[in-house]
Amino acid sequence: MKHKRFDDIACPIARSLDRVGRNWGMLVIREAFYGATKFDEFLHGVSGITPSTLTSRLNELTAAGMLERRLYNERPTRYEYVLTPLGRDFRPVLWAMMDWGSRHFCPEGALVQLQHRQTGLTAIPYLADRATGRELVPSEYRVVAGPAATAEVRARVARRLLGGVAP
Amino acid sequence: MKHKRFDDIACPIARSLDRVGRNWGMLVIREAFYGATKFDEFLHGVSGITPSTLTSRLNELTAAGMLERRLYNERPTRYEYVLTPLGRDFRPVLWAMMDWGSRHFCPEGALVQLQHRQTGLTAIPYLADRATGRELVPSEYRVVAGPAATAEVRARVARRLLGGVAP
Repeated sequence: MKHKRFDDIACPIARSLDRVGRNWGMLVIREAFYGATKFDEFLHGVSGITPSTLTSRLNELTAAGMLERRLYNERPTRYEYVLTPLGRDFRPVLWAMMDWGSRHFCPEGALVQLQHRQTGLTAIPYLADRATGRELVPSEYRVVAGPAATAEVRARVARRLLGGVAP
Repeated sequence: MKHKRFDDIACPIARSLDRVGRNWGMLVIREAFYGATKFDEFLHGVSGITPSTLTSRLNELTAAGMLERRLYNERPTRYEYVLTPLGRDFRPVLWAMMDWGSRHFCPEGALVQLQHRQTGLTAIPYLADRATGRELVPSEYRVVAGPAATAEVRARVARRLLGGVAP
């Protein structure tokens, strides 16, 4: 698989994908959230992944700062992989994807659910805005160029404002 | 790139990645949100993508139900690609990723921002829960098996509850 370095691209989504977007990368992160730390746990948890692919993903996710590699056994040398603060902060993206996938691709019913620990209620996730307390819906919000926007970003955003996808 | 069909896997995240997770797929979706509909607009918008890769992604995203292909010119035959309701519903995932990427991988400052149309305030996105009105934080919420959970899902969730990542 040919891989382009997305960091040169002026887009936070592209830069995010550069960290987690490679084949299986997000499933390795998912397993880390489920408590996997050791190689065999990831291998067992991410069904279908091969050892060599897993080795690549663990190395890349470690290099990207998503996972931290820790020595847990000296003879033989064994490492475990734990989520860094950066990796943990990815949780809302994973949960948003879990919700989208559950609603659209699980005709048999929910495989997993988010549950409020105290009330036991099943969560219904949505994206909200701390600044206004409102739901982040496209009828009320739009993407605009930020202070560090490049000419490329400005052109992209301008196209969006001119037409693009209706709210 | 070898591609495994994730649909057999009992995980909504894996099934989601099967639709959008291939190399560049999410950036093609991003461009669709920015208003791209024609091949050249995607090609220009997703910097670095080759025509053959773009053709593959557009075909796959159409087959997956994310994009709809529409004839807009008969001679020569030309198609455009527009987001379906399923594709549009992916927006919260993209916005969550945009937020994560902006906070961590844009040391030069924000390239893009979400802005409340009426007040002009910059949005601060977070994941919330309609059922309780609370923020979806791991100290208050947990992943549990859903009604359609398989043995594999139950094992994974049980591991999470037994230990896994601290909130």
